[in-house]
Amino acid sequence: MIFLGIDPGLATVGFGAIEAIDGQVRFLDAGVFETPAHSDLGERLDSIRTDFIQILQELKPDVIGMEELYFAQNTASALKVAHARGVLVQVAFEHGIPLLALTPLQIKQNITGDGHADKWQVQEMVKRLLKLPAAPQPDDAADGVAIAMCTERIYASQLPHTLKP
Amino acid sequence: MIFLGIDPGLATVGFGAIEAIDGQVRFLDAGVFETPAHSDLGERLDSIRTDFIQILQELKPDVIGMEELYFAQNTASALKVAHARGVLVQVAFEHGIPLLALTPLQIKQNITGDGHADKWQVQEMVKRLLKLPAAPQPDDAADGVAIAMCTERIYASQLPHTLKP
Repeated sequence: MIFLGIDPGLATVGFGAIEAIDGQVRFLDAGVFETPAHSDLGERLDSIRTDFIQILQELKPDVIGMEELYFAQNTASALKVAHARGVLVQVAFEHGIPLLALTPLQIKQNITGDGHADKWQVQEMVKRLLKLPAAPQPDDAADGVAIAMCTERIYASQLPHTLKP
Repeated sequence: MIFLGIDPGLATVGFGAIEAIDGQVRFLDAGVFETPAHSDLGERLDSIRTDFIQILQELKPDVIGMEELYFAQNTASALKVAHARGVLVQVAFEHGIPLLALTPLQIKQNITGDGHADKWQVQEMVKRLLKLPAAPQPDDAADGVAIAMCTERIYASQLPHTLKP
């Protein structure tokens, strides 16, 4: 099964994909898609839709995990990211792919054992657990992989309950 | 020219359309599209996309006006509406229709002359200005019409500057 993790954003969307076979996970792909800063909101959202559809067609994920938004200092920025996240969530539904929403705390907790781990600790664990020579770059791509790994773990732990007899 | 006003929401999207010919405006249509409260976010956003595309195909607007989000008390609710607004803004761009973002203050000021007018005052002016027997119902549909009217006025006032010689 293929798990795709998405770190939503308006300027940069991070993604990471892993494959799980018989409880073993391996790294598949990671990267970002970006939108030009000076284009208008509609154009940026449309570019996110187009790029996300292309990634779904290339990677054919079975399950998508996507980070939840929360309010930090900058609420105006969170509102913009929510516009982008809306487009991403709709596209996932349109493609019939189940989607899990994960909080940042849940992702850090799951990957490092510490809900308040920093970015570096998460990247180090991603690197180790997937036996990569280095953590995927840039940061948003590494976050995408961490989200994919967290999604796979939650999915695997829930499997007995969700499988119909 | 046809102006479509959109009052974005996740549970209810209000819309209103007017036609402007030689500086005269007339009411065309108004209504809401709703999403089932107990369906998941992806399904609701997908239903908003589908309904909005259908409205664009039926009404064929030349310009769309859409209310901006602002933070009132409930930030979690604003984040949800922003998801829906992202889908709406992307669809407008996909259809090549210019979009104006209007603040609630701008809409009230423009329609009633008072940026702090209440819902009733806005509806009364919509009814009067369009010579309707009653304000469109429900409230979100009336808001859609007010947004369409405000969009037409801003568009008309900017016309000399945007028209290329």
